[in-house]
Amino acid sequence: MKDISLKEAQKVIDSWINKFEEGYWPPLSMLAAMVEEVGELSRIINALEGYKKPKEDENLVNLEEELGDILFSLICIANYYKIDLNTSLINVIRKYNNRDIHRWTLKRKTEGNKKQMS
Amino acid sequence: MKDISLKEAQKVIDSWINKFEEGYWPPLSMLAAMVEEVGELSRIINALEGYKKPKEDENLVNLEEELGDILFSLICIANYYKIDLNTSLINVIRKYNNRDIHRWTLKRKTEGNKKQMS
Amino acid sequence: MKDISLKEAQKVIDSWINKFEEGYWPPLSMLAAMVEEVGELSRIINALEGYKKPKEDENLVNLEEELGDILFSLICIANYYKIDLNTSLINVIRKYNNRDIHRWTLKRKTEGNKKQMS
Amino acid sequence: MKDISLKEAQKVIDSWINKFEEGYWPPLSMLAAMVEEVGELSRIINALEGYKKPKEDENLVNLEEELGDILFSLICIANYYKIDLNTSLINVIRKYNNRDIHRWTLKRKTEGNKKQMS
Repeated sequence: MKDISLKEAQKVIDSWINKFEEGYWPPLSMLAAMVEEVGELSRIINALEGYKKPKEDENLVNLEEELGDILFSLICIANYYKIDLNTSLINVIRKYNNRDIHRWTLKRKTEGNKKQMS
Repeated sequence: MKDISLKEAQKVIDSWINKFEEGYWPPLSMLAAMVEEVGELSRIINALEGYKKPKEDENLVNLEEELGDILFSLICIANYYKIDLNTSLINVIRKYNNRDIHRWTLKRKTEGNKKQMS
Repeated sequence: MKDISLKEAQKVIDSWINKFEEGYWPPLSMLAAMVEEVGELSRIINALEGYKKPKEDENLVNLEEELGDILFSLICIANYYKIDLNTSLINVIRKYNNRDIHRWTLKRKTEGNKKQMS
Repeated sequence: MKDISLKEAQKVIDSWINKFEEGYWPPLSMLAAMVEEVGELSRIINALEGYKKPKEDENLVNLEEELGDILFSLICIANYYKIDLNTSLINVIRKYNNRDIHRWTLKRKTEGNKKQMS
Protein backbone atom coordinates (compact mmCIF):
# COMPACT_ATOMS: atom_id res chain seq x y z
CA MET A 1 0.00 0.00 0.00
CA LYS A 2 1.33 3.39 -1.03
CA ASP A 3 3.17 5.51 1.53
CA ILE A 4 0.87 8.55 1.46
CA SER A 5 2.05 12.02 2.50
CA LEU A 6 -0.07 14.46 4.48
CA LYS A 7 -0.20 16.78 1.46
CA GLU A 8 -1.43 13.98 -0.80
CA ALA A 9 -4.00 12.89 1.80
CA GLN A 10 -5.37 16.43 1.93
CA LYS A 11 -5.56 16.57 -1.87
CA VAL A 12 -7.22 13.18 -2.30
CA ILE A 13 -9.90 14.00 0.28
CA ASP A 14 -10.47 17.45 -1.20
CA SER A 15 -11.02 15.93 -4.63
CA TRP A 16 -13.38 13.35 -3.20
CA ILE A 17 -15.50 15.93 -1.36
CA ASN A 18 -15.55 18.16 -4.41
CA LYS A 19 -17.24 15.40 -6.37
CA PHE A 20 -20.43 16.14 -4.44
CA GLU A 21 -22.79 19.08 -4.74
CA GLU A 22 -22.91 19.34 -0.95
CA GLY A 23 -19.17 19.96 -0.60
CA TYR A 24 -17.76 20.47 2.87
CA TRP A 25 -20.17 20.59 5.78
CA PRO A 26 -20.22 23.76 7.88
CA PRO A 27 -17.28 23.75 10.32
CA LEU A 28 -19.36 23.17 13.47
CA SER A 29 -20.88 20.14 11.82
CA MET A 30 -17.49 18.75 10.78
CA LEU A 31 -16.38 19.33 14.37
CA ALA A 32 -19.40 17.42 15.71
CA ALA A 33 -18.50 14.56 13.35
CA MET A 34 -14.97 14.53 14.75
CA VAL A 35 -16.33 14.50 18.31
CA GLU A 36 -18.51 11.53 17.40
CA GLU A 37 -15.43 9.65 16.18
CA VAL A 38 -13.41 10.61 19.27
CA GLY A 39 -16.31 9.22 21.32
CA GLU A 40 -16.05 5.90 19.50
CA LEU A 41 -12.31 5.84 20.09
CA SER A 42 -13.01 6.42 23.81
CA ARG A 43 -15.35 3.46 23.95
CA ILE A 44 -12.77 1.18 22.33
CA ILE A 45 -9.88 2.33 24.53
CA ASN A 46 -12.04 1.92 27.65
CA ALA A 47 -12.82 -1.62 26.52
CA LEU A 48 -9.20 -2.46 25.64
CA GLU A 49 -7.92 -1.05 28.93
CA GLY A 50 -10.37 -3.18 30.83
CA TYR A 51 -12.87 -0.83 32.45
CA LYS A 52 -15.87 -0.93 30.20
CA LYS A 53 -17.02 -4.35 29.14
CA PRO A 54 -17.07 -4.37 25.33
CA LYS A 55 -20.52 -4.46 23.70
CA GLU A 56 -19.44 -6.57 20.76
CA ASP A 57 -16.15 -7.61 19.22
CA GLU A 58 -14.29 -4.43 20.06
CA ASN A 59 -10.65 -4.80 19.22
CA LEU A 60 -7.63 -3.42 17.46
CA VAL A 61 -9.29 -3.74 14.06
CA ASN A 62 -11.94 -1.25 15.17
CA LEU A 63 -9.25 0.94 16.66
CA GLU A 64 -7.53 1.14 13.26
CA GLU A 65 -10.81 2.21 11.72
CA GLU A 66 -11.63 4.80 14.39
CA LEU A 67 -8.21 6.41 14.14
CA GLY A 68 -8.69 6.60 10.37
CA ASP A 69 -12.10 8.24 10.88
CA ILE A 70 -10.66 10.86 13.22
CA LEU A 71 -7.83 11.56 10.79
CA PHE A 72 -10.33 11.91 7.96
CA SER A 73 -12.43 14.42 9.91
CA LEU A 74 -9.28 16.33 10.91
CA ILE A 75 -8.21 16.58 7.26
CA CYS A 76 -11.68 17.84 6.26
CA ILE A 77 -11.49 20.68 8.80
CA ALA A 78 -7.94 21.52 7.71
CA ASN A 79 -8.97 21.55 4.03
CA TYR A 80 -11.97 23.77 4.71
CA TYR A 81 -9.77 26.40 6.37
CA LYS A 82 -6.91 25.91 3.83
CA ILE A 83 -4.53 24.77 6.53
CA ASP A 84 -1.47 22.74 5.58
CA LEU A 85 -1.22 19.83 8.05
CA ASN A 86 2.37 19.19 7.02
CA THR A 87 3.32 22.61 8.42
CA SER A 88 1.07 22.06 11.46
CA LEU A 89 2.72 18.80 12.36
CA ILE A 90 6.29 19.97 11.80
CA ASN A 91 5.62 23.01 13.99
CA VAL A 92 4.06 20.95 16.75
CA ILE A 93 7.03 18.57 16.82
CA ARG A 94 9.33 21.57 16.98
CA LYS A 95 7.24 23.08 19.81
CA TYR A 96 7.34 19.93 21.92
CA ASN A 97 11.01 19.55 21.23
CA ASN A 98 11.73 23.04 22.55
CA ARG A 99 9.22 23.14 25.36
CA ASP A 100 9.32 19.66 26.75
CA ILE A 101 12.89 18.58 26.30
CA HIS A 102 13.64 19.42 29.95
CA ARG A 103 10.22 18.52 31.26
CA TRP A 104 10.73 14.78 31.11
CA THR A 105 13.71 12.57 31.87
CA LEU A 106 15.99 12.06 28.90
CA LYS A 107 17.34 8.53 28.58
CA ARG A 108 21.11 8.26 28.85
CA LYS A 109 22.70 7.74 25.45
CA THR A 110 23.04 4.09 24.53
CA GLU A 111 23.67 2.21 21.33
CA GLY A 112 19.92 1.78 20.93
CA ASN A 113 18.90 5.38 20.52
CA LYS A 114 21.86 6.82 18.66
CA LYS A 115 19.96 6.91 15.40
CA GLN A 116 16.98 8.80 16.83
CA MET A 117 15.62 12.15 15.70
CA SER A 118 17.92 14.98 16.78
CA MET B 1 9.38 22.33 4.29
CA LYS B 2 9.62 18.62 3.67
CA ASP B 3 6.55 16.75 2.43
CA ILE B 4 6.24 14.28 5.30
CA SER B 5 4.44 10.95 4.93
CA LEU B 6 2.22 9.43 7.61
CA LYS B 7 4.72 6.60 8.06
CA GLU B 8 7.58 9.05 8.58
CA ALA B 9 5.49 11.14 10.98
CA GLN B 10 4.79 8.03 13.06
CA LYS B 11 8.50 7.14 13.10
CA VAL B 12 9.73 10.62 14.00
CA ILE B 13 7.29 10.90 16.91
CA ASP B 14 8.11 7.39 18.11
CA SER B 15 11.82 8.24 18.16
CA TRP B 16 11.13 11.46 20.00
CA ILE B 17 9.03 9.79 22.69
CA ASN B 18 11.57 7.01 23.06
CA LYS B 19 14.17 9.57 24.06
CA PHE B 20 12.43 9.88 27.41
CA GLU B 21 12.34 7.46 30.32
CA GLU B 22 8.60 8.04 30.67
CA GLY B 23 7.80 6.80 27.17
CA TYR B 24 4.18 6.76 26.05
CA TRP B 25 1.51 7.73 28.58
CA PRO B 26 -1.14 5.14 29.40
CA PRO B 27 -3.78 5.10 26.62
CA LEU B 28 -6.56 6.71 28.67
CA SER B 29 -4.22 9.56 29.47
CA MET B 30 -3.25 10.02 25.81
CA LEU B 31 -6.96 10.00 25.02
CA ALA B 32 -7.63 12.70 27.63
CA ALA B 33 -4.84 14.78 26.05
CA MET B 34 -6.53 14.40 22.66
CA VAL B 35 -9.88 15.44 24.15
CA GLU B 36 -8.22 18.52 25.63
CA GLU B 37 -6.93 19.48 22.17
CA VAL B 38 -10.31 18.80 20.54
CA GLY B 39 -11.79 21.12 23.18
CA GLU B 40 -9.39 23.88 22.14
CA LEU B 41 -10.29 23.33 18.51
CA SER B 42 -13.98 23.69 19.48
CA ARG B 43 -13.32 27.02 21.16
CA ILE B 44 -11.53 28.37 18.08
CA ILE B 45 -14.16 27.15 15.61
CA ASN B 46 -16.94 28.60 17.77
CA ALA B 47 -15.08 31.91 17.75
CA LEU B 48 -14.37 31.83 14.00
CA GLU B 49 -17.97 30.94 13.22
CA GLY B 50 -19.22 33.84 15.24
CA TYR B 51 -21.01 32.42 18.25
CA LYS B 52 -18.54 32.62 21.06
CA LYS B 53 -16.73 35.92 21.44
CA PRO B 54 -12.98 35.12 21.31
CA LYS B 55 -11.05 35.52 24.58
CA GLU B 56 -7.88 36.76 22.95
CA ASP B 57 -6.50 36.80 19.42
CA GLU B 58 -8.09 33.58 18.31
CA ASN B 59 -7.52 33.02 14.65
CA LEU B 60 -6.33 30.75 11.90
CA VAL B 61 -2.79 30.67 13.32
CA ASN B 62 -4.15 29.03 16.47
CA LEU B 63 -6.24 26.72 14.34
CA GLU B 64 -3.12 25.49 12.55
CA GLU B 65 -1.52 24.77 15.91
CA GLU B 66 -4.57 23.01 17.36
CA LEU B 67 -4.94 20.75 14.34
CA GLY B 68 -1.25 19.89 14.67
CA ASP B 69 -1.76 19.08 18.37
CA ILE B 70 -4.68 16.77 17.61
CA LEU B 71 -2.70 15.04 14.87
CA PHE B 72 0.22 14.59 17.27
CA SER B 73 -2.00 13.01 19.93
CA LEU B 74 -3.60 10.77 17.29
CA ILE B 75 -0.18 9.56 16.13
CA CYS B 76 0.84 8.82 19.73
CA ILE B 77 -2.19 6.60 20.26
CA ALA B 78 -1.61 4.87 16.91
CA ASN B 79 2.06 4.26 17.75
CA TYR B 80 1.23 2.87 21.18
CA TYR B 81 -1.08 0.27 19.66
CA LYS B 82 1.24 -0.35 16.64
CA ILE B 83 -1.39 0.85 14.20
CA ASP B 84 -0.34 2.00 10.75
CA LEU B 85 -2.20 5.25 10.01
CA ASN B 86 -1.40 4.95 6.32
CA THR B 87 -3.52 1.78 6.18
CA SER B 88 -6.19 3.38 8.42
CA LEU B 89 -6.57 6.37 6.15
CA ILE B 90 -6.57 4.44 2.89
CA ASN B 91 -9.24 2.10 4.29
CA VAL B 92 -11.39 4.97 5.51
CA ILE B 93 -11.27 6.68 2.12
CA ARG B 94 -12.22 3.37 0.52
CA LYS B 95 -15.08 2.92 3.01
CA TYR B 96 -16.54 6.37 2.36
CA ASN B 97 -16.11 5.86 -1.34
CA ASN B 98 -18.14 2.65 -1.25
CA ARG B 99 -20.68 3.63 1.36
CA ASP B 100 -21.36 7.26 0.61
CA ILE B 101 -21.04 7.48 -3.13
CA HIS B 102 -24.83 7.27 -3.50
CA ARG B 103 -25.65 9.09 -0.28
CA TRP B 104 -24.83 12.55 -1.58
CA THR B 105 -25.41 14.23 -4.91
CA LEU B 106 -22.63 13.66 -7.40
CA LYS B 107 -21.76 16.71 -9.46
CA ARG B 108 -22.31 16.29 -13.16
CA LYS B 109 -19.02 15.71 -15.00
CA THR B 110 -17.40 18.93 -16.14
CA GLU B 111 -13.93 19.86 -17.32
CA GLY B 112 -13.13 20.94 -13.75
CA ASN B 113 -13.34 17.63 -11.98
CA LYS B 114 -12.10 15.24 -14.62
CA LYS B 115 -8.75 14.76 -12.93
CA GLN B 116 -10.23 13.82 -9.55
CA MET B 117 -9.66 10.66 -7.53
CA SER B 118 -11.39 7.66 -9.05
CA MET C 1 -42.16 11.71 38.54
CA LYS C 2 -40.35 13.13 41.52
CA ASP C 3 -38.61 16.49 41.21
CA ILE C 4 -35.08 15.35 42.04
CA SER C 5 -32.45 17.74 43.39
CA LEU C 6 -28.79 17.65 42.39
CA LYS C 7 -27.85 16.61 45.92
CA GLU C 8 -30.32 13.72 45.85
CA ALA C 9 -29.15 12.67 42.39
CA GLN C 10 -25.57 12.53 43.64
CA LYS C 11 -26.63 10.45 46.67
CA VAL C 12 -28.77 8.00 44.71
CA ILE C 13 -25.99 7.34 42.20
CA ASP C 14 -23.39 7.00 44.96
CA SER C 15 -25.53 4.40 46.71
CA TRP C 16 -26.06 2.55 43.47
CA ILE C 17 -22.34 2.41 42.64
CA ASN C 18 -21.49 1.38 46.18
CA LYS C 19 -23.61 -1.72 45.75
CA PHE C 20 -20.89 -3.15 43.55
CA GLU C 21 -17.46 -4.48 44.49
CA GLU C 22 -15.94 -2.57 41.58
CA GLY C 23 -17.06 0.84 42.87
CA TYR C 24 -16.13 3.91 40.84
CA TRP C 25 -13.95 3.45 37.81
CA PRO C 26 -10.63 5.31 37.76
CA PRO C 27 -11.21 8.97 36.79
CA LEU C 28 -9.65 8.74 33.32
CA SER C 29 -11.96 5.86 32.56
CA MET C 30 -15.04 7.76 33.78
CA LEU C 31 -13.89 10.65 31.62
CA ALA C 32 -13.59 8.38 28.57
CA ALA C 33 -17.13 7.15 29.27
CA MET C 34 -18.34 10.76 29.33
CA VAL C 35 -16.53 11.47 26.05
CA GLU C 36 -18.24 8.45 24.51
CA GLU C 37 -21.64 9.86 25.53
CA VAL C 38 -20.75 13.34 24.26
CA GLY C 39 -19.85 11.67 20.97
CA GLU C 40 -23.30 10.09 20.78
CA LEU C 41 -24.90 13.45 21.53
CA SER C 42 -22.85 14.93 18.67
CA ARG C 43 -24.13 12.34 16.25
CA ILE C 44 -27.75 13.02 17.21
CA ILE C 45 -27.42 16.80 17.04
CA ASN C 46 -25.70 16.54 13.65
CA ALA C 47 -28.61 14.40 12.45
CA LEU C 48 -31.28 16.69 13.93
CA GLU C 49 -29.62 19.77 12.47
CA GLY C 50 -29.58 18.20 9.07
CA TYR C 51 -25.96 17.60 8.16
CA LYS C 52 -25.39 13.96 8.88
CA LYS C 53 -28.02 11.58 7.60
CA PRO C 54 -29.27 9.55 10.59
CA LYS C 55 -28.27 5.87 10.69
CA GLU C 56 -31.50 4.71 12.26
CA ASP C 57 -34.40 6.37 14.05
CA GLU C 58 -32.40 9.15 15.63
CA ASN C 59 -34.66 11.59 17.31
CA LEU C 60 -35.57 13.53 20.42
CA VAL C 61 -36.14 10.30 22.38
CA ASN C 62 -32.50 9.37 21.89
CA LEU C 63 -31.49 12.91 22.75
CA GLU C 64 -33.27 12.62 26.10
CA GLU C 65 -31.36 9.42 26.78
CA GLU C 66 -27.98 10.79 25.72
CA LEU C 67 -28.36 13.89 27.89
CA GLY C 68 -29.23 11.59 30.81
CA ASP C 69 -26.13 9.48 30.11
CA ILE C 70 -23.88 12.54 30.10
CA LEU C 71 -25.44 13.80 33.33
CA PHE C 72 -24.92 10.39 34.92
CA SER C 73 -21.24 10.33 33.94
CA LEU C 74 -20.83 13.91 35.20
CA ILE C 75 -22.33 12.97 38.57
CA CYS C 76 -20.02 9.95 38.85
CA ILE C 77 -16.94 12.13 38.36
CA ALA C 78 -18.28 14.70 40.84
CA ASN C 79 -18.98 11.98 43.42
CA TYR C 80 -15.54 10.44 43.03
CA TYR C 81 -13.86 13.77 43.80
CA LYS C 82 -16.45 14.68 46.50
CA ILE C 83 -17.60 17.72 44.57
CA ASP C 84 -21.01 19.21 45.30
CA LEU C 85 -22.68 19.93 41.95
CA ASN C 86 -25.22 22.19 43.62
CA THR C 87 -22.40 24.57 44.59
CA SER C 88 -20.78 24.13 41.15
CA LEU C 89 -23.92 25.11 39.33
CA ILE C 90 -24.82 28.05 41.55
CA ASN C 91 -21.27 29.40 41.16
CA VAL C 92 -21.31 29.01 37.41
CA ILE C 93 -24.62 30.86 37.12
CA ARG C 94 -23.16 33.61 39.31
CA LYS C 95 -20.01 33.74 37.15
CA TYR C 96 -21.94 34.08 33.90
CA ASN C 97 -24.19 36.65 35.51
CA ASN C 98 -21.22 38.81 36.46
CA ARG C 99 -19.03 38.22 33.47
CA ASP C 100 -21.48 38.08 30.62
CA ILE C 101 -24.18 40.51 31.63
CA HIS C 102 -22.60 43.21 29.43
CA ARG C 103 -21.30 40.82 26.78
CA TRP C 104 -24.64 40.23 25.16
CA THR C 105 -27.57 42.50 24.40
CA LEU C 106 -30.08 42.71 27.23
CA LYS C 107 -33.69 42.74 26.11
CA ARG C 108 -35.59 45.88 27.01
CA LYS C 109 -37.91 45.32 29.97
CA THR C 110 -41.37 44.25 28.92
CA GLU C 111 -44.31 42.67 30.70
CA GLY C 112 -43.11 39.27 29.46
CA ASN C 113 -39.83 39.04 31.29
CA LYS C 114 -40.63 40.82 34.54
CA LYS C 115 -40.77 37.60 36.49
CA GLN C 116 -37.34 36.41 35.36
CA MET C 117 -34.33 35.65 37.54
CA SER C 118 -32.77 38.81 38.95
CA MET D 1 -26.84 27.35 49.74
CA LYS D 2 -30.20 26.25 48.39
CA ASP D 3 -30.69 22.61 47.38
CA ILE D 4 -31.61 23.20 43.73
CA SER D 5 -33.61 20.66 41.73
CA LEU D 6 -32.94 19.84 38.09
CA LYS D 7 -36.26 21.38 37.11
CA GLU D 8 -35.42 24.63 38.92
CA ALA D 9 -31.94 24.69 37.41
CA GLN D 10 -33.45 24.39 33.92
CA LYS D 11 -35.90 27.22 34.67
CA VAL D 12 -33.32 29.58 36.16
CA ILE D 13 -30.99 29.15 33.20
CA ASP D 14 -33.84 29.53 30.72
CA SER D 15 -34.86 32.82 32.35
CA TRP D 16 -31.28 34.03 32.33
CA ILE D 17 -30.76 33.25 28.63
CA ASN D 18 -34.11 34.82 27.76
CA LYS D 19 -32.88 38.11 29.18
CA PHE D 20 -30.69 38.49 26.10
CA GLU D 21 -31.66 39.30 22.54
CA GLU D 22 -29.33 36.57 21.30
CA GLY D 23 -31.15 33.80 23.16
CA TYR D 24 -29.88 30.25 22.81
CA TRP D 25 -27.00 29.62 20.42
CA PRO D 26 -27.60 27.19 17.57
CA PRO D 27 -27.32 23.59 18.84
CA LEU D 28 -24.01 22.78 17.12
CA SER D 29 -22.51 25.83 18.74
CA MET D 30 -23.81 24.87 22.19
CA LEU D 31 -22.36 21.42 21.56
CA ALA D 32 -18.96 22.91 20.66
CA ALA D 33 -19.10 24.92 23.91
CA MET D 34 -19.75 21.70 25.83
CA VAL D 35 -16.83 19.99 24.07
CA GLU D 36 -14.59 22.90 25.04
CA GLU D 37 -15.58 22.41 28.70
CA VAL D 38 -15.09 18.65 28.51
CA GLY D 39 -11.62 19.40 27.12
CA GLU D 40 -10.82 21.53 30.16
CA LEU D 41 -12.07 18.79 32.45
CA SER D 42 -9.74 16.37 30.62
CA ARG D 43 -6.76 18.61 31.24
CA ILE D 44 -7.52 18.84 34.95
CA ILE D 45 -8.12 15.12 35.40
CA ASN D 46 -4.90 14.32 33.51
CA ALA D 47 -3.06 16.69 35.86
CA LEU D 48 -4.72 15.31 39.01
CA GLU D 49 -4.03 11.75 37.97
CA GLY D 50 -0.40 12.51 37.46
CA TYR D 51 0.30 12.19 33.75
CA LYS D 52 0.27 15.72 32.48
CA LYS D 53 2.23 18.23 34.49
CA PRO D 54 -0.20 21.03 35.44
CA LYS D 55 0.32 24.38 33.72
CA GLU D 56 -0.70 26.45 36.71
CA ASP D 57 -2.48 25.77 39.97
CA GLU D 58 -4.78 23.10 38.62
CA ASN D 59 -6.73 21.54 41.42
CA LEU D 60 -10.07 20.53 42.82
CA VAL D 61 -11.31 24.15 42.82
CA ASN D 62 -10.97 24.23 39.04
CA LEU D 63 -12.58 20.83 38.84
CA GLU D 64 -15.66 22.15 40.66
CA GLU D 65 -15.86 24.99 38.16
CA GLU D 66 -15.38 22.80 35.10
CA LEU D 67 -18.07 20.36 36.20
CA GLY D 68 -20.39 23.33 36.72
CA ASP D 69 -19.58 24.60 33.21
CA ILE D 70 -20.36 21.23 31.65
CA LEU D 71 -23.62 21.00 33.60
CA PHE D 72 -24.55 24.51 32.44
CA SER D 73 -23.92 23.64 28.79
CA LEU D 74 -25.88 20.40 29.20
CA ILE D 75 -28.86 22.29 30.62
CA CYS D 76 -28.74 24.80 27.74
CA ILE D 77 -28.96 22.00 25.16
CA ALA D 78 -31.77 20.31 27.12
CA ASN D 79 -33.69 23.59 27.37
CA TYR D 80 -33.30 24.31 23.66
CA TYR D 81 -34.86 20.96 22.75
CA LYS D 82 -37.45 21.14 25.59
CA ILE D 83 -36.05 18.06 27.27
CA ASP D 84 -36.75 17.45 30.93
CA LEU D 85 -33.48 16.38 32.57
CA ASN D 86 -35.33 15.06 35.59
CA THR D 87 -36.98 12.44 33.38
CA SER D 88 -33.68 11.82 31.54
CA LEU D 89 -31.81 11.13 34.74
CA ILE D 90 -34.48 8.95 36.31
CA ASN D 91 -34.67 6.88 33.13
CA VAL D 92 -30.93 6.48 32.91
CA ILE D 93 -30.71 5.30 36.52
CA ARG D 94 -33.50 2.82 35.78
CA LYS D 95 -31.69 1.64 32.62
CA TYR D 96 -28.41 1.03 34.42
CA ASN D 97 -30.26 -0.67 37.23
CA ASN D 98 -31.90 -3.11 34.83
CA ARG D 99 -29.05 -3.61 32.43
CA ASP D 100 -26.02 -3.60 34.65
CA ILE D 101 -27.24 -5.20 37.83
CA HIS D 102 -25.77 -8.54 36.76
CA ARG D 103 -22.82 -7.10 34.88
CA TRP D 104 -20.83 -6.20 37.95
CA THR D 105 -20.27 -7.95 41.26
CA LEU D 106 -22.86 -7.10 43.87
CA LYS D 107 -21.46 -6.66 47.36
CA ARG D 108 -22.82 -9.15 49.89
CA LYS D 109 -25.41 -7.55 52.16
CA THR D 110 -23.88 -6.05 55.26
CA GLU D 111 -25.06 -3.54 57.82
CA GLY D 112 -23.31 -0.82 55.83
CA ASN D 113 -25.35 -0.93 52.66
CA LYS D 114 -28.78 -1.87 53.97
CA LYS D 115 -30.12 1.61 53.52
CA GLN D 116 -29.04 1.89 49.87
CA MET D 117 -31.26 2.53 46.87
CA SER D 118 -33.28 -0.56 45.96
